[in-house]
Amino acid sequence: MIIVMKAGRPQSEAVKIMTELEARGLKPVPLYGVERTVIAVIGEERDLDMSHLQSFEGVDKVMRVVKPYKLVSIETHPEPTIIEVNGVKIGSQQLVAMAGPCSVESEQQMECAAAKLAEMGIKILRGGAYKPRTGPYSFQGLGKEGLQILKETADRHKMAVVTEALDVRDLDEVCKYTDIIQMGARNMQNFELLKELGRIKKPVLLKRGLSATIEELLLAAEYILAHGNNEVILCERGIRTFEKDTRNTFALATVPLIKELSHLPIIVDPSHATGKRSLLAPMTKAAIAAGADGFIIEVHPNPEEALSDAEQQITPEEFEKLYENLKPIAEAVNRHF
Amino acid sequence: MIIVMKAGRPQSEAVKIMTELEARGLKPVPLYGVERTVIAVIGEERDLDMSHLQSFEGVDKVMRVVKPYKLVSIETHPEPTIIEVNGVKIGSQQLVAMAGPCSVESEQQMECAAAKLAEMGIKILRGGAYKPRTGPYSFQGLGKEGLQILKETADRHKMAVVTEALDVRDLDEVCKYTDIIQMGARNMQNFELLKELGRIKKPVLLKRGLSATIEELLLAAEYILAHGNNEVILCERGIRTFEKDTRNTFALATVPLIKELSHLPIIVDPSHATGKRSLLAPMTKAAIAAGADGFIIEVHPNPEEALSDAEQQITPEEFEKLYENLKPIAEAVNRHF
Amino acid sequence: MIIVMKAGRPQSEAVKIMTELEARGLKPVPLYGVERTVIAVIGEERDLDMSHLQSFEGVDKVMRVVKPYKLVSIETHPEPTIIEVNGVKIGSQQLVAMAGPCSVESEQQMECAAAKLAEMGIKILRGGAYKPRTGPYSFQGLGKEGLQILKETADRHKMAVVTEALDVRDLDEVCKYTDIIQMGARNMQNFELLKELGRIKKPVLLKRGLSATIEELLLAAEYILAHGNNEVILCERGIRTFEKDTRNTFALATVPLIKELSHLPIIVDPSHATGKRSLLAPMTKAAIAAGADGFIIEVHPNPEEALSDAEQQITPEEFEKLYENLKPIAEAVNRHF
Amino acid sequence: MIIVMKAGRPQSEAVKIMTELEARGLKPVPLYGVERTVIAVIGEERDLDMSHLQSFEGVDKVMRVVKPYKLVSIETHPEPTIIEVNGVKIGSQQLVAMAGPCSVESEQQMECAAAKLAEMGIKILRGGAYKPRTGPYSFQGLGKEGLQILKETADRHKMAVVTEALDVRDLDEVCKYTDIIQMGARNMQNFELLKELGRIKKPVLLKRGLSATIEELLLAAEYILAHGNNEVILCERGIRTFEKDTRNTFALATVPLIKELSHLPIIVDPSHATGKRSLLAPMTKAAIAAGADGFIIEVHPNPEEALSDAEQQITPEEFEKLYENLKPIAEAVNRHF
Repeated sequence: MIIVMKAGRPQSEAVKIMTELEARGLKPVPLYGVERTVIAVIGEERDLDMSHLQSFEGVDKVMRVVKPYKLVSIETHPEPTIIEVNGVKIGSQQLVAMAGPCSVESEQQMECAAAKLAEMGIKILRGGAYKPRTGPYSFQGLGKEGLQILKETADRHKMAVVTEALDVRDLDEVCKYTDIIQMGARNMQNFELLKELGRIKKPVLLKRGLSATIEELLLAAEYILAHGNNEVILCERGIRTFEKDTRNTFALATVPLIKELSHLPIIVDPSHATGKRSLLAPMTKAAIAAGADGFIIEVHPNPEEALSDAEQQITPEEFEKLYENLKPIAEAVNRHF
Repeated sequence: MIIVMKAGRPQSEAVKIMTELEARGLKPVPLYGVERTVIAVIGEERDLDMSHLQSFEGVDKVMRVVKPYKLVSIETHPEPTIIEVNGVKIGSQQLVAMAGPCSVESEQQMECAAAKLAEMGIKILRGGAYKPRTGPYSFQGLGKEGLQILKETADRHKMAVVTEALDVRDLDEVCKYTDIIQMGARNMQNFELLKELGRIKKPVLLKRGLSATIEELLLAAEYILAHGNNEVILCERGIRTFEKDTRNTFALATVPLIKELSHLPIIVDPSHATGKRSLLAPMTKAAIAAGADGFIIEVHPNPEEALSDAEQQITPEEFEKLYENLKPIAEAVNRHF
Repeated sequence: MIIVMKAGRPQSEAVKIMTELEARGLKPVPLYGVERTVIAVIGEERDLDMSHLQSFEGVDKVMRVVKPYKLVSIETHPEPTIIEVNGVKIGSQQLVAMAGPCSVESEQQMECAAAKLAEMGIKILRGGAYKPRTGPYSFQGLGKEGLQILKETADRHKMAVVTEALDVRDLDEVCKYTDIIQMGARNMQNFELLKELGRIKKPVLLKRGLSATIEELLLAAEYILAHGNNEVILCERGIRTFEKDTRNTFALATVPLIKELSHLPIIVDPSHATGKRSLLAPMTKAAIAAGADGFIIEVHPNPEEALSDAEQQITPEEFEKLYENLKPIAEAVNRHF
Repeated sequence: MIIVMKAGRPQSEAVKIMTELEARGLKPVPLYGVERTVIAVIGEERDLDMSHLQSFEGVDKVMRVVKPYKLVSIETHPEPTIIEVNGVKIGSQQLVAMAGPCSVESEQQMECAAAKLAEMGIKILRGGAYKPRTGPYSFQGLGKEGLQILKETADRHKMAVVTEALDVRDLDEVCKYTDIIQMGARNMQNFELLKELGRIKKPVLLKRGLSATIEELLLAAEYILAHGNNEVILCERGIRTFEKDTRNTFALATVPLIKELSHLPIIVDPSHATGKRSLLAPMTKAAIAAGADGFIIEVHPNPEEALSDAEQQITPEEFEKLYENLKPIAEAVNRHF
């Protein structure tokens, strides 16, 4: 850690901080410049709350030297983490494709979607039973009934399930029906839920929050690992910016950046990242080219009748075309489905 | 609702949508322009999912005409809502001052803060027992022990308590110790918690999320009202932007804007909105001048030893000075503490 | 245009607006709902200033129906615009690669970069002679001397030149030395410069501003076309967001979105969009996969000695590797260099 | 400056950088930690380009210790700069009120606005003759004719003039007609114009760019001071964020923050910062309470007929009421008009 003192302040202020640092077992090294004093701190800074030091008299700013996360860091664990679900090795050269409707609406809708997806070779079926909706008057999902439909449909087609848990009280119930537990963007910093996920023995799909930095995404994953679950799949799903022509801003550079910082797999959610059906194909290609480990896409047998997110869902036929067009890109970067 | 069709498309596409609208009991009015058709929809659009229509063939965009919230709207309830806590009428001409440490750390710390605050006439004591922290290695709060210390200290000084609930499972427990339940910024869209708050008979302090729009803040409040609790105090606490020199960007215009849109009281949290001790006094004055119904500020007997948010907490002495300086501003806008 | 009146207002307010609209040759169609009146306007709304109507008594909001640009729109000109520079057909199936140092620093530096780039088949050499720098104490470019070095080096290797003009007074001079005139992000809304570019007979590379919406980018291009120059190449170079781990946020979805809205070619600038050398290769691949018409990348013979943007420049050797790796991606989307 | 090396890298990389630093006359101090090496640099870092060092092998990040500006800094010049215009001492206890129409539209319009404003005691008249408009089809201002009308009207009422210059070629002409030259938000980083302003002997009103950080605003001012003109008035006019319910986000904390960092006066532009007439009064009060040195507000005799920004202009009567209501606030913070 580096502590920058304000210009022209008495040396006693720096001394007071150094005494405090030494009392905490750290080694401060003062650097007396012409204008100001800078204190470099040697030792384990992760355990020290920065804001604490910021409040000392005479401090201009406190700057971290190391990343605040450990377990998710590539420095701690240089080998990529590979998570196997229904025969797909997520994080390996193999790419993962997760697809299905935004919300579970009926048996027939799920059957129709799943049958076609399974036929294309898709191994993981998505579908929301508990839906986080901005307003209280929107469709909130079928709840437990939705979970049952989802699970039965997936079983029939030998698919695994990925679905979202919203409420810490439903977590055990959701776990009975799903193979991957999804943490939605709005819950990325629901720390109580993250802690519980650490105790679960299922892979977690952790979506980036709407305004979460990459560091915060990794710290959210760190919560899960620190509480005992190493199987976290990160997901870039777009961030909120001033741009209004797309639902969110698809910050695709997150993918190669995460690959530099962490050993965890990272996939993309182009449906939410763009919010526009016509952008799905080009942006999914882009994601594969950028090094993503796969994607999760919303596919609905009849988007015009969808109860949520209709404008970003595609038909199984549209998805099939998209999926076929991804294969040459995957090959070009030495990956395969 | 207004549905704009793409330019130069066959009329049949518009007809298909109009048929759908009529089937749902709405009255579509087509407007045939030179370039394109626009369909105006007469009827209750709140019950209709916009995204559904967006997915029809030939649709360029769907635009809402009315706000998506009802119960929180000033159109529904033109009189301001006044919420009384410990003799303070929040939302009236009287301003509310809530103050206390970021985290409850010890009996001594709370006693020291509360004694001085009570002496100044502060009626509501804040303090966090459950702390949402970005990383898992930071101090997470004293939990139930913290609640007890908080409540006992407040009782001793005839103060009311405001504290945060993070976990839906702790809600009933927290309610035993607090007079106002705080929903933190990260939980503004924790919809399960919002629904539960609707069933509670205590006022809720609902903080704006880091990247929540004003409409989303009002919709979060709408969840609480729609589930049965009308006592919601809104709170502007800064939003996340590109600016790095302040912790958040204090979007103060939210205050007069909310006053135009809603009957609910709105206060500010200058501690989180700025993240800088030196900005608290000018920005709290600004908030009162802008029409805020009060504020919540972090006050710690010894910020240099605080376990969280040290750089934005002030001493009771600093707070006293700030508080005194607010009074002439309050008077200038015909308000009082 | 749609004008939404506030709820419960007297009809006379709507009538006043309709009279005004008719006086301007437009046809207003009133729609009387239960709560409020909505006025749909038939006619050419582009010539009408929206804000004007917003200020009438009783108006809640004014919503545009059509895009505010015409000449750049794909509706006006459905065929893609192809711009030929030094044998490269920008906007066709052929991809364009522009490369070279951030700043022209010396003859030797430019010769070293150009010789290697020309050998790889790169046809367009970039280099800044006038540099827009955030602070006045940073290297501001070699100016006219830089232009001469750039032009002579390019000529020697049969390359075309792309360089930035900052000052409207230098425009004619810059035009003597360059084949494509670059408008930097900070100048995207320098409207005086845009108007002058309309009178120039050279292609313009128009970079998206740091916080410009896609609509504003297209309106900036519209200025150039409206003033007589149809040869505009758009460029996505990242936008400013809260994210700090990359220099900018590479909003790659802009590429396919522009393809839907406009006939103009669009390339990407991954150097500025990411600001990190290690992200260049994956993000350039992603851009090609997403449908970009090419890219402009910073290549310096010795980045460690660069006078600007050192951290995002790569060596010619690194560029060669990147360039080779792009070819399979290009092929996968039926494009070629 | 602090240079953080990556973890586990050979010491030779740090040595190479230290050699480079010494060659530039700086004193590097290496700190060998357990995981990594950190190099603290003693000396004048402002002259050193950070990005240069970032590109060295093994460097993780380079962190500045001091601010990149000098002349505008309060450390260099602890006394506030006071700029006198038409008897108003801007930056003193006296507050400045600048008011007038967005655009100069006609003699009659200006006369009507100025007569009423002068009567209230307003000393500085605003009005745009050259208008930066997002699209080429909007009203672009009356140009030189506008300047003449503006100047004649102001003279008649013994008012000073503030108006915008857009084009470096018009600067001398604009200077003949104005007392304060306005740099609009879109031109804040038009560095060629900033340099020319340094050579002018008139005060400059420098508006913050739409996505400029506070540091960038101060660096833009630094350009003007470094080129010879010390009379710069800063202006907060809102930044661009995700929020859609206001035109911009009024980042009012900029005001007290600038007061900590710089000796230059700072005023606010609530018209552009909010874009909504109804928010002007509360937000101007807030600005005065926060310590702003004054404001610039758009006042039009008939906003319904305004050719630009109609929704944010108020009538002279509305302005008079606002102005009267500001006086008690000013008094409460020991300021006066």
